[in-house]
Order: sequence, then C-alpha cells, then structure tokens
Amino acid sequence: MRRKLRMGMVGGGPGAFIGEVHRIAARLDGKTELVCGVFSTDPEKNRSMAEKLFLPEEKCYPDYETMFCEESRLPEGERMDFVAVTTPNVTHFKIASEALKHGFHVICEKPMTWNLEEALRLRDLVRESGLIFALMHNYSAYPMIRQMRRMIEDGKIGNLRKIVASYDLGWLAAPNAGKQASWRINPQFSGIAACVGDIGTHAEHLIEFATGLEITEISADLSTFVEGRVLDDDATILLRFNNGARGVIEVSEVASGEENQFKLRIYGSDGCLEWSQQTPEDLVWKRNDAAMKILRRGWAEMDDSVKALCRLPAGHPEGFIEAFANIYNEFADALAAHIAGKEYHGDFPSVEAGVRGMNFIETVVRSSMNHSQWQKFEKL
Amino acid sequence: MRRKLRMGMVGGGPGAFIGEVHRIAARLDGKTELVCGVFSTDPEKNRSMAEKLFLPEEKCYPDYETMFCEESRLPEGERMDFVAVTTPNVTHFKIASEALKHGFHVICEKPMTWNLEEALRLRDLVRESGLIFALMHNYSAYPMIRQMRRMIEDGKIGNLRKIVASYDLGWLAAPNAGKQASWRINPQFSGIAACVGDIGTHAEHLIEFATGLEITEISADLSTFVEGRVLDDDATILLRFNNGARGVIEVSEVASGEENQFKLRIYGSDGCLEWSQQTPEDLVWKRNDAAMKILRRGWAEMDDSVKALCRLPAGHPEGFIEAFANIYNEFADALAAHIAGKEYHGDFPSVEAGVRGMNFIETVVRSSMNHSQWQKFEKL
Amino acid sequence: MRRKLRMGMVGGGPGAFIGEVHRIAARLDGKTELVCGVFSTDPEKNRSMAEKLFLPEEKCYPDYETMFCEESRLPEGERMDFVAVTTPNVTHFKIASEALKHGFHVICEKPMTWNLEEALRLRDLVRESGLIFALMHNYSAYPMIRQMRRMIEDGKIGNLRKIVASYDLGWLAAPNAGKQASWRINPQFSGIAACVGDIGTHAEHLIEFATGLEITEISADLSTFVEGRVLDDDATILLRFNNGARGVIEVSEVASGEENQFKLRIYGSDGCLEWSQQTPEDLVWKRNDAAMKILRRGWAEMDDSVKALCRLPAGHPEGFIEAFANIYNEFADALAAHIAGKEYHGDFPSVEAGVRGMNFIETVVRSSMNHSQWQKFEKL
Amino acid sequence: MRRKLRMGMVGGGPGAFIGEVHRIAARLDGKTELVCGVFSTDPEKNRSMAEKLFLPEEKCYPDYETMFCEESRLPEGERMDFVAVTTPNVTHFKIASEALKHGFHVICEKPMTWNLEEALRLRDLVRESGLIFALMHNYSAYPMIRQMRRMIEDGKIGNLRKIVASYDLGWLAAPNAGKQASWRINPQFSGIAACVGDIGTHAEHLIEFATGLEITEISADLSTFVEGRVLDDDATILLRFNNGARGVIEVSEVASGEENQFKLRIYGSDGCLEWSQQTPEDLVWKRNDAAMKILRRGWAEMDDSVKALCRLPAGHPEGFIEAFANIYNEFADALAAHIAGKEYHGDFPSVEAGVRGMNFIETVVRSSMNHSQWQKFEKL
Repeated sequence: MRRKLRMGMVGGGPGAFIGEVHRIAARLDGKTELVCGVFSTDPEKNRSMAEKLFLPEEKCYPDYETMFCEESRLPEGERMDFVAVTTPNVTHFKIASEALKHGFHVICEKPMTWNLEEALRLRDLVRESGLIFALMHNYSAYPMIRQMRRMIEDGKIGNLRKIVASYDLGWLAAPNAGKQASWRINPQFSGIAACVGDIGTHAEHLIEFATGLEITEISADLSTFVEGRVLDDDATILLRFNNGARGVIEVSEVASGEENQFKLRIYGSDGCLEWSQQTPEDLVWKRNDAAMKILRRGWAEMDDSVKALCRLPAGHPEGFIEAFANIYNEFADALAAHIAGKEYHGDFPSVEAGVRGMNFIETVVRSSMNHSQWQKFEKL
Repeated sequence: MRRKLRMGMVGGGPGAFIGEVHRIAARLDGKTELVCGVFSTDPEKNRSMAEKLFLPEEKCYPDYETMFCEESRLPEGERMDFVAVTTPNVTHFKIASEALKHGFHVICEKPMTWNLEEALRLRDLVRESGLIFALMHNYSAYPMIRQMRRMIEDGKIGNLRKIVASYDLGWLAAPNAGKQASWRINPQFSGIAACVGDIGTHAEHLIEFATGLEITEISADLSTFVEGRVLDDDATILLRFNNGARGVIEVSEVASGEENQFKLRIYGSDGCLEWSQQTPEDLVWKRNDAAMKILRRGWAEMDDSVKALCRLPAGHPEGFIEAFANIYNEFADALAAHIAGKEYHGDFPSVEAGVRGMNFIETVVRSSMNHSQWQKFEKL
Repeated sequence: MRRKLRMGMVGGGPGAFIGEVHRIAARLDGKTELVCGVFSTDPEKNRSMAEKLFLPEEKCYPDYETMFCEESRLPEGERMDFVAVTTPNVTHFKIASEALKHGFHVICEKPMTWNLEEALRLRDLVRESGLIFALMHNYSAYPMIRQMRRMIEDGKIGNLRKIVASYDLGWLAAPNAGKQASWRINPQFSGIAACVGDIGTHAEHLIEFATGLEITEISADLSTFVEGRVLDDDATILLRFNNGARGVIEVSEVASGEENQFKLRIYGSDGCLEWSQQTPEDLVWKRNDAAMKILRRGWAEMDDSVKALCRLPAGHPEGFIEAFANIYNEFADALAAHIAGKEYHGDFPSVEAGVRGMNFIETVVRSSMNHSQWQKFEKL
Repeated sequence: MRRKLRMGMVGGGPGAFIGEVHRIAARLDGKTELVCGVFSTDPEKNRSMAEKLFLPEEKCYPDYETMFCEESRLPEGERMDFVAVTTPNVTHFKIASEALKHGFHVICEKPMTWNLEEALRLRDLVRESGLIFALMHNYSAYPMIRQMRRMIEDGKIGNLRKIVASYDLGWLAAPNAGKQASWRINPQFSGIAACVGDIGTHAEHLIEFATGLEITEISADLSTFVEGRVLDDDATILLRFNNGARGVIEVSEVASGEENQFKLRIYGSDGCLEWSQQTPEDLVWKRNDAAMKILRRGWAEMDDSVKALCRLPAGHPEGFIEAFANIYNEFADALAAHIAGKEYHGDFPSVEAGVRGMNFIETVVRSSMNHSQWQKFEKL
C-alpha cells in the first residue's frame, strides 16, 4: 500500500461523542484519511463539520445514498475505500447494506442493527459481497484484554469456572439525561433494549472474546428505574457456558456516580484474571499458591502479539483512544491486504459478533419477560 | 459494672481459626475475661489449649453440659456470664439452647443453626429466656459499614435502586482444602448449603443491615465445581427488594486467588456508596454531580455514632479484629446493662438475624433446585 | 485557517521513541499534517521512514539545512509551517536556530539545549524572530495538572508550604541499557547532566508551572550508581521558594522496577493536592477538615478551561498521548493565529521555560560539586 | 511460664492516645495483664482511669516512685514484672531509670529520652541492670516490614542504592492543634526537635531496620511553618549510607490533609520494594525484568518467620494494633525467658535504637543550623 486508506463517514455531527472518537482513532496511526462524509441530516451542521475537518465542499455530501453513488464512480485511489457508520442503531442496517452494495467496506458502531432479523440479513450481504465488515467492540482491543485472552488460551488459570462482568454508568440516573441519551432510550431508534443493547452487548462480547467460551443459557432480570421510560435502564443476567462454567453480567445506566465502570473477572481452577476499563493498563493475576501479580501494559514479559498493539512504553498511560485505534488499525491492515489481493484475517469483531450481539439482546429480553426463565442462547 | 464479664467458650481448640479470633476480640477492650471453656472433644487438645490460656485446670471442662451445669451453681460474679459458641454449625443449636436453659447469655457463630427449624426453635428459647443472644455477623460492625448505613438512612444517596454484593474466596478451589474446610462442605456438619451458608449469609445480612431494605424475592443458581462435593461451592443470587430495588449476590469459595474479597456497592437515585472488606477504612461515595469522595475512617466529619466504634485515629489502620471486637463490645455493654437491671439495646445481630439467615439458605436452595425460579423470601 | 498546518520534522527515525510520539500527537486533532522531514542521518533509514509515512520522495530531505532552505522557497500554504525537533540535546540549538533564521516556527524536545549559554542565545534568536517556539514539557498539559494549577491559583489549599516531587525510572539500572539510553548518558550528546537533564527538568518545570512559585535556592546531591558512567543517574535536590515554601525533588533513572513514576504532592496551609503520572485521570485533594476527594478528569465540577483540554468523557481513560497532543494543539492554535495576523498566547512552555531548565541543570550540578551547598537559583 | 506477665503503667490517662494503644496491644495476645499504674498526675483522673480498667484501688498509685517502691517489695508473681512508659519525652529518662533501679523491665515510648546525654546514661543503666528494655518503634513489627527486611537480607533486590522515606501528618497544620500536640511542640517537654523527634526518628529507625544499612552522613533542612512555634514542624533530610547508597527522609506535621502517611521505598540494583503504613498488608515488589508483585500479608510463599507475626489469614485485614502488639509479644517472650533463666533475643528495638534515634535528632538539628552542611552520623 503506497497510500493512506480513504475513509468516508456517516454520522458524527457537531456534539456527537462517538463519531469524533472514530475520527481521532482513524487518524492516530496515519494509515487512514477522512475524505468525505455526511455528518448530519441538518445541512448547516453537516457543512460546518466538514469545514472544521478541512474537507473540500464537494466532499460534504447531502445524504449517504448520494455519497455512495458518487464515490463509487471514482477510480480506486480517488474514491472512498470504506465508510464508518456512527449513527443511531435504527439506521445501521440501511446505511451498511447500501455501502456494501456500492462496493465499500464498512466499519460500524454497535449494536450492529435495530433487531436480530436485520443482523441476519446484513450477515448475508457481507458474505455475498466479499467485503470487509468490522464492528466497533473497542474494548476487545485493549492490550491487556488481548493479554488476558492469550493467558487463558495458554491455560494459565486452568479450566474456567466463573465469569463476572459488571458495566455501570450513571449517565441515565436522572430522567433528563441529555441529547446523547434521548435516542438510546427510544425504542424507535434503539430497538427492544436500551441498557442491554448499549452496554450489555459489550459485556457479552468481551466475555466470549476473552474466554473463548460460548454462552449457552441465559436468565435475565431487566429493570426500568426512571419513570416514563419504556426500555430497560438496568439488568442482571445469569450465564451458563458450554464448558460448564457459570457467570453473571451486571449492567446499569442508572448507577449514579459511575463514569464508565466496566470490569471483568475470570476465575479458573488455577487462578484468576481481573481487568477494569478505568485502569486499563493493569491486568491482575491472582493465584492461591503464589503472590498476586499486576501485569502492566508494556512489562518485560508481555506476549509479543500484544506488544504489537502498544504505542508507548510501560508507564506512559495509554487509554480508550489507543484501544479504539487498534480496531481501526487492524481493519486498515485487512483492507490494505484486500486491496492488494492478499489474504488477511484481522483480529477485529466481525459481522458474526454483530449477529451474536443482536441475538443476545433478544434472548435476554425474552428471559426477562418470562420471569427470568432460563433460555437457550443459540448459535445462529 | 465493677468487674469484667466472665466468658466461657465452646470450641476454639488448637488450630481453629475463628475460635482464636473470638478470644482476641473478647480481650481487646478489657471488658471481658475468659474464665472457662471446652475447647476440644479431644481431652489432650482441650487441656493443652486451656493451659496456653492460663486457665486453672478445673476451669477446663470435659463437655459443655458439665460446664453449664457446674458454672450455673456458682454465684454471680464467680460463674461464667456468657458462652461463646464457635463449633461447627450442626452443634450450635444444642449448645446454645442448653446454655440458655442454664441461664447463660450466648454469642454464637454464623450460620446460626443447622437448619431453619432449629433456628425458629432457638428464637423461641431466646424469647422465653429473656437472655441476650448475639450472632457473629462481624462485618456489620466495621465502622465504615455503620457510616454507610447512617448515610443511607439520612438519604444521602436518595432512593435505593441497585445493590451488588460479591464475596469471593479461593480456599476451596482445590479438592483437598484442609481441615478447616472439611466440615464446611459436609452436609452433616454444615447443613443444606456450604458456600451460601458460610458466606452467602454474610452478604444477605450485610445488605439488609446497611440498606434497611428487605429482600422479598430470590432467584438463585448454585454450582458445585469441585468433583466429589455434594454441596454448593459457588452461587449467584438475584434479589428483589420491598422498595422495588433490585440486586445480586455473587459468592464463590472456588474463586482461586481471592483471599477474603467481600464487596458491597449500593446505588441510589442520587449517588452510590461502595465498601470493600479488604480496604475497610475507605467508604467510597460517588455522585453524578460532584467529585468522588473517599470517606476514611476517622475523618473529620464522621458520624458521632461511628466515632464510638473506633479505637485509633485516621491513618492508623484498624481491621478485622476491631470490627469483631465491636460486636463483643456491644454485647458486653448489653450484658452489663442486663446484669445491672437496665434497658439496653445493643446494635449487634440478634437471633432474628439468625432466623433470617437460615431462611435465606433454604429459599436460595429451593430456587436453585427449581431452575432458578423466583421464590418469595418470607418474613418469619 | 482553512487548511491544516504543515509540519516538518528533524529526528524520529526507525526505532526512535519520542519522534513517533510527536507524530501521533500532531495527528490526533487533525489540525496538522506532516509534509516533510529528515528522520535519520542514515539515508536508508531516512527514506524508509518517509515511505512508511506516505511522504513523497522529494519531501524526504537529506539534511535539515537543505530542508529549511528548500522549504523556505515555497509559498505559504505549500511550504512547511513549523519544524519539530526531536534529536539528541546536542543538536537542538543548531537545528532550532537554523529553522528560526529561515522563518520557521519551532516545537522542540527538552532539555532545550546542550548548555545554558546556548539556551540564552536561542532565547535571543526567538525574541528577534518574532516566531513561535514551544518546548515539549508535555506533563504540564495533562488536564488534571491544569486543574491543580487552577485550584492553587484560586487558593483552594491556602498558602503553599511544602512541595514534594519524585520521578523514578528503572531503565538505566543496568550498565547496558540499550540504544535510546546511550546518548543520554554521554556528555557529548547530553550535556553536563543525564538524569537531572532528562527528568529533573520535567520536575522543576512542573513544580513551577503548577504552583506559580519560583524556586530561589537549591541544594543537591547527585550520584552515579552504575560503574563506567560519567554523568549522574540519580539525584536528590532540596528546594526553597520565593514565598518561603520548601521542597524536594527526588529523581532516579536507576530505580529498578519503576516505569515512568512521576509524582507531585503540594501542601498548603489548608490542604494538599496530589497527582501521579501513571494515574493521570485522578487529582487527589485532601484536607484536615473534610473528606478526601478524588477529582476525576471530566467530573461535573471541573474547571471550564480544563474541559477544553479533554477529548473524552470521564471514565474513558485519556493518557500520555492526549497530554502531548494538548501541547501540539495549543501550539497549532498559536500558529494559526500568528498566520492570520492575530494575537494569541498559547499555554505551552516557551523558550523561557527552556532557559530556566538549563539554568536549573547548571545550578544543581554546581551545588552537588560543592558538597550540596545551597546555591541561588537566579532568574535570567 | 505458667502465668500472665504483670504490667504496670506510667501515663495513659483519660484522653491519651498512645497509652490506650499500649493497653490494647498488651491485652491482645493474652500473655500480659495490667496490674497497677499511675495514669495521671491529676489524682481524680488517675483514679477514674484505674476504675475503668477494673484495677483495685490500692493498685492505682499516686506516683511512679511509690509504685516502683511498693511493687518491688512484693514477691515475684505478685509484683509487677515490667512497666510501660507512655509519658511525654522529658520524663522518660527519670521513670525508666528509676524502674530499672527497682528491678523492673521497661517498655518505653519513643523518642527514648529528652536529649542524647540522657540516652547514653540510660544505656549504661540498662547494661548494668541486666534487665530488658524495649523501645516502641512499632512500625518495625508490621509483618510486611519484616518480610521486606528478610528479602533484602536474601539479596532479592540486589545491592541497595536509594532509600526514600516520607512521613506526613496534617495534625499540626493549624496553630491550635489540640492537647495531644501541645507538649510535642514545646521544647521543655519534647527536646530540641518536634517533627524530627516525633516521626523523623521512626523513619530513621525503619530505614536502618529494614535495610540493615547504616546511615553515615546527614544533610538536613528543617522548617517551622506555623507562626509562634520554636521547634521544627517539617524537615527534609538527605542521607548517605555505609555501602554507598543515598537516601532522603521527608517528614512533615503540617502536611494538611494527611493522616499518618508513612511510606518507604527501597531501590536495589535488581528491583525495588515499597511499603506504605496506610496499606500495611501489601508489600510491592517491582523489577525491570518481571511483572510487579503485590505480596499480601499471609500469601502462600510468605517467610515462616513472618507468618509467626500474623494472627489472621490473608484478606482479613490486620493493622496498627497487631504490629504494636507484636512488639509487646516479643517483649513478653523475652521476659518470660528471662524470668525462667533462659537466653532469649527479642526482635524488638532496644536501648541501642534509642541512642541512635537521639543521636539522629542532634545530628539533624546540627546540620540544619549549619546551612544543611553534611554531618557525620556517628555510631556511639
């Protein structure tokens, strides 16, 4: 690849949180440049964002159909290579499927679609297209999560027995939680779950990613604490796994006082591994028969595959942006290989992870509506 | 009271963990002295422990029946005032009821009895006797737990919504977990639950103690990970409360690598309070609208009722023993008042807490045996 | 400004640590693009780095003189706007002064020059040029350091009394510490101090930056622990301040086991503020008369001027790169204003900070060579 | 020994902090009983404390001379075995020397005496008497400090290079710091140093205790921040050691917001060990070439000699009281051996440590009065 990859964007207008994160992450390693976008359905906001990003006027498109259509007419190297989809859930399917139809690779925010049916259709489209699709489960790209996965694979903590994840946010504790929140609690934009869709799917993905296990059964208790809401703002979900392990996911968006408190503890027959998103540089390793270790990102014995995901030496704190950028990086490498006609399997979440996530949402909601009855969590 | 209270003991032979803790705690504040005991069913061990404790030979009794009988014949001030029961669960009822019959107050290890029926009978006996009975839920006497309870009462975190407790130990991770463990996993000594009885009841008690709420419904998933065991060594328990709050208790004794990891997080509409037994001097208070506070035991604004539970100024770490001794202290004050014919209501767990704990065990097991079906958790 | 700023670079060849950090930081906010550079004196390495950065061949210059010369002939908007100097200390002065002469703004690694005399001459050149010069004391751009400074200004901890800084690294603990280390311990490249120059100046700068005080007297004890070294690899430095406060800087590069352990504690008559580079999201505020607070980056009451330095909401960890990028950002805003003919005072360390740092090095070395005698630390 | 040791006490009246700590610590392990005392020079307070402690009236003596005189007439087993001296510094010498003259062993608060001369005379008296004298440097009895000492002895961190101790309290930050403070800042009661005597000596002792090194040179800068005080309330002290290591002690009693923040970091050629009094259960072990370890009191590989100092398993927090009691315990074992006519060398600080501490105070003050000139720190 003798050039940067060309990125288009749908979403990420003025004030958007995650769209801006996508842009920073895409820039970080200098492999990608933003070349066009539709940042807002409001033409004024759309234009002002494009200007702020130093895009030429003609690369600020009025809508995604036009963007895909016009860009697809340009020759390779001049047209957009892929699109980042950072809009509310309800539009993911339409935008992503349209992009695929026009030959563009896609990197998409989670949850992948509005419902499971869309997810299954999107998977078909991705398979048919032969194009690359990445789902932004950014937490799976933290170096110490990769280290954790590697150590579990290597049997460092023995047979897995108990998995405990909690993900707590306080941002929806009050009825009036601001603009970013409003669409997330509206089923027309969000789907059949709010908290479970927004953060429960992160927990589900990270557990399966880090452990290599499959969740096979689910029993859930969803709650809505703030009056006037239709969807869940809190949930506790019991899990059973294909190897006999048990687990629990505790998630809440009304956990007043919490920032972005995502924690994962994994117990095996020979020890445990703990990670917490707010101190992502540390992986805690405890055993009954030896001293507790704090594995610090960048320490001398870190796995080589993990070293490749670090930009700074130990003690120079990396954080959220670097993990996010790792997904972009792996996606970019896959694209570069694809364009060069080579094989490449990026270690980023794919459309399969998206199907699994949407199925998780539906299974959890079904259990909760049936008095927390255990439900099979099928592989689709 | 112009003298120390006179304590007898059943249990706590050589090598016993909790018996020795009772003795240290009883000594700490100088209000109580050990005057007699039955420390082991093995006469040799019984005698050697008594010697180590500088007890005269005649105060080392061969069995508790003899002890209660002989001590009850002595005049007040010369006889034992109360007995500490620190034997395996299966014997608690017999010892405690015998003690009450002979007119001795009782301080008893948890869980209170071998099954719920015994608990209900013991409650009757306590009520009839007019004597004082304390149950050793020591965690409820940590100063920062009392501070937490006070702040919740005062509405500092608003209406309670979500309660998350976890209690993880690694000590039973391997099949061969040593002498202290063997009786705890044997239903003949332990009852119908191991992990839920041993530490689940601590979580249940602490939650109701700290929040002032009542658990009304329970859905549980118990596991046995180590081959050859009959009883649970791990459990996750969903909770519903009388005010609409939800919660979860996650407990494990096969959590390899964990020491005595007991944590409690309580979320209300206006903030959250967090406490962890391994850093008991800190109470974390988070809110959406203000900076996180670490309330340190002994800090300037601590509640006066809590100050009374502290022996050292802030920064001079207090721990497990001091909390344990607080129960002894409150029990001793109640006894002194009783002996002096005064009213006194100690802030220690009573026989009611014991009934509740035994009912908790039975309800949890019933739910787990019924595919985690929700069960009413009755007030008995 | 309707375009990105155009950046040239001297240094940052393959394997260089800090050069790559400059590039990532410059990219982060999309205001700057790298357009040319001299990355290595080895032509092969120079070229390969340029390729990796997708630079056109002709923009990979053989040496900095050629780059400045040729770029200065291009019209504004096509030529480089500024140069980042990320070479060993000994070359900073020559490169920076040459750049200024050709009309280029400069952002320069610390310590600013090889000795104090060069620093004073460089200051003259900057003043004469009217161009913008920034010194990369990146730690001063961490949001919670800015918050600390603001709170001290506002008198939140009263009159300052005691300042304690420590900066410990283990990387030079063994004689053979690798390529990155070799020039830093060689006086021909580094100057008259190694550890004091490399990290002591960071501590000195951060203390004066955060407190607003001036160090007025210095007593130092420098050590060289690893055999064969000429320069210091460890130092402890007593400080006196213009308001009567006292302080100490403890720095070491032979602190085996430490990563990048830079800590700052500031005590005033009414409380204290503590910050640690390895947990940069937290600012600890303690007082005698109230509960300890952990001010978390992004919390509700953070100062508005500090909010402007954050990219992510609370709980989404930011780190080293973001702080580094804040300097680039403030530098870029100053440049954009300068190009547009507007006034702008960036909050980044200037050539004055560089003079102060070089004077600090000389004063510290002088004290240590005179049996730790107190030396005046003059304002030059 | 077939009986408890009999303890007398001078000091520890109502409201005293450290006297009550001595009593609790003495009780903890059941080897010692308080049998008599002079708790206050105020007869009313003296009596009320004795009553609270359930002492018979005749065992509450009006003054220490009377106590020593009368107790010395009783036969062994009925008379006091030793006396605990917990009065202000100025009286230590008189009380301790009188006790020794009457044949009583002594356990004494630090600093040992009012000045160095008294310390040297007291050492002579101890040597002549053949009696046991313990100095209460309680921090040296924390299990993880003993573990640290053992690991350093075993060469786990190589040759020692740098020692950093800090001890910060906020309690004297305001002019009016309460009763407990008043005598400590009064030279007539305290001696020639306040902060250095009260906590600087703890740091000096702990450093030499844990490292096995000797401090050989001292350069100090003492400050008095609060108006109206004669003695130091803050100090920074540079150290040089007999093996070439360097170090620094930073102490302050005007560190507003600090509780009892005593920290020790020791760097060797192969790693570092860190301990902090407010989290005493953890010993942090860092190395350049391996993962950081948190050695937790009670973990599987703890040294056997250290296990003997623990009462509770890992995860059941021990703290200040247990460390304090370890000194009492070792003192009691030495006494029991002495009474039984056996050899015994307790691992508690002796009169030698007291001489060293008093010499430290004088050397530090001399350096500070001489513009921080380096002073030899002699072995006396």
